Amino acid sequence: MGEADAESRADALTDAALGGDRRALARLLTAVENRTALAEAALRRLYPRAGSAHIVGITGPPGAGKSTLVAALIGEVRKAGRAVAVVAVDPSSPITGGALLGDRVRMQAYAGDGDVFIRSMAARGHAGGLASTTSAATAVLDAAGFDLVLVETVGTGQSEVEVAAAADTTVVLEAPEMGDEVQAIKAGLLEVADLVVVNKGDKPGAQRTASQLRAMLVAAPRVGSTVVDRPRPKQPEVLITTAATGEGVPELLAALDRHRQAAAADGGDGARRARLARAEAQVWAILSERLRDRLHRGGLRDATAVTLAAVAEHRLDPYAAADELLGKLMDETER
Amino acid sequence: MGEADAESRADALTDAALGGDRRALARLLTAVENRTALAEAALRRLYPRAGSAHIVGITGPPGAGKSTLVAALIGEVRKAGRAVAVVAVDPSSPITGGALLGDRVRMQAYAGDGDVFIRSMAARGHAGGLASTTSAATAVLDAAGFDLVLVETVGTGQSEVEVAAAADTTVVLEAPEMGDEVQAIKAGLLEVADLVVVNKGDKPGAQRTASQLRAMLVAAPRVGSTVVDRPRPKQPEVLITTAATGEGVPELLAALDRHRQAAAADGGDGARRARLARAEAQVWAILSERLRDRLHRGGLRDATAVTLAAVAEHRLDPYAAADELLGKLMDETER
Repeated sequence: MGEADAESRADALTDAALGGDRRALARLLTAVENRTALAEAALRRLYPRAGSAHIVGITGPPGAGKSTLVAALIGEVRKAGRAVAVVAVDPSSPITGGALLGDRVRMQAYAGDGDVFIRSMAARGHAGGLASTTSAATAVLDAAGFDLVLVETVGTGQSEVEVAAAADTTVVLEAPEMGDEVQAIKAGLLEVADLVVVNKGDKPGAQRTASQLRAMLVAAPRVGSTVVDRPRPKQPEVLITTAATGEGVPELLAALDRHRQAAAADGGDGARRARLARAEAQVWAILSERLRDRLHRGGLRDATAVTLAAVAEHRLDPYAAADELLGKLMDETER
Repeated sequence: MGEADAESRADALTDAALGGDRRALARLLTAVENRTALAEAALRRLYPRAGSAHIVGITGPPGAGKSTLVAALIGEVRKAGRAVAVVAVDPSSPITGGALLGDRVRMQAYAGDGDVFIRSMAARGHAGGLASTTSAATAVLDAAGFDLVLVETVGTGQSEVEVAAAADTTVVLEAPEMGDEVQAIKAGLLEVADLVVVNKGDKPGAQRTASQLRAMLVAAPRVGSTVVDRPRPKQPEVLITTAATGEGVPELLAALDRHRQAAAADGGDGARRARLARAEAQVWAILSERLRDRLHRGGLRDATAVTLAAVAEHRLDPYAAADELLGKLMDETER
């Protein structure tokens, strides 16, 4: 597919997607996931139209009930008459891609509702892929007019936590009485939380877990996240939900709205920084891809292979190799 | 700390570490984790001395018993008179860092044994950090003379799986009868496995799980991993262990050795590609960091901030921004 062809196809697809065609939207997101030329052309057009959706990250350890909570939240958002999209970063697919059965089931419940859109995504390839692909997908859904875009990730994994942390509002989900390994995960996650939710509130120990979390949050210094340059000066609220019955879900939606208003009210600083983090993830991923292309294709291809082989064989250290490749990149441009 | 100072301190520390001083080694690894100037100077010296250790990645879902298996494997390796180091990518710390209690307990069991070295690592900051920090740490431990370097990661998370997949031999750990979410994780993980281990072999269903896994592995096409450019043409063996009692652990060590020999025998192609993947992760991370430094510090700092703010406010699309910054990087070099 040539570039001009990609552009005209992108125009047709974006027009259709902006006009409410959900199949066109789905195809755009597939292009984003596969980083095709069509995706680039479409994003160039859609990006200026994005910026008004509330991007909410939802993360937590496996088994905390993220999917069930997202399903309950969709119902609540729809009651309020708002349109909602979900980007589920698929735990089955750091590598393979492919939707979880659960997503398909949830999808069916809203099959007739054009104001609900659920999408599983897998990022492939190079580091940083997850952050940039997800940011690009949220921009597309934002431009397509969804009021709320939920980004669901498993809270175990550097990239996955970063993705959730780059939202306007980040919800960290916990469940009562999880194992030791999960407890350990918890501590890292709390740093990125704007809201903490104890799900499975009907289980014994839910209140106690909530109290413990409140104590941890008071004790922990509220430093800005080291992952996303974003201050989180406020003590996050701790809520209890039972997603399976819907209990506490209206309160969660209200808390999300409050957080967004508060972020806008404090001079927009918190909101601005989350947007900057998402922008930087995308720009940096694109810049990296452009540089990688130059190194691995075209005139520098053989030289790059020789340099990397020397590092692999420990004849050259990686710093010297990086400086060598950087020099070649710059020389190439001058010519 | 100036550069010359970093270099002389690095010389002293690397000499001590190469001479068997474990505290010096620990300090080098801290420098690697924090990406200091000292780490760069030390790695430049140590890198040419690395290349003979067997790097083994061990990954699997939370609760599969990775830490217990690693502890059992350490015992087995020591019986064979070989020196072993462990880099545990800490699940508690996509963000905060800090060792798990379990590591400290395991550490104590080998406190008097200079041929065992266990280290928890957390990668901070930018995408790709985990892969490059871990690769650099394995190079340091390799140079320090460890025969076997085990890299333990949780198998949920793109970066974490990539790290384990970039080893010479990748072991994917499973346990019988885990939940649905874990089953989904499993499918993605199998793609990167050179060896599959069903741990908790004393639990009901272990044999059945092993049979199911063998069937999945036969059914799945053995395509090369999309994460690491590395062919995995051979059907991975499926072993059963009970790490808590040590059952099956000698067989696991024998299988690890066999895999390494087989990789070396097939013209070294499999081994070469794993080394290339680790080399590329490191070189690319350094190159990225150099470019980021140029963009965020020095003369381009203000221009970068202006460009990213325009993207954050959706006045500029991220592709146009990337091209703008790339142009500025190149212009700066010409001057």
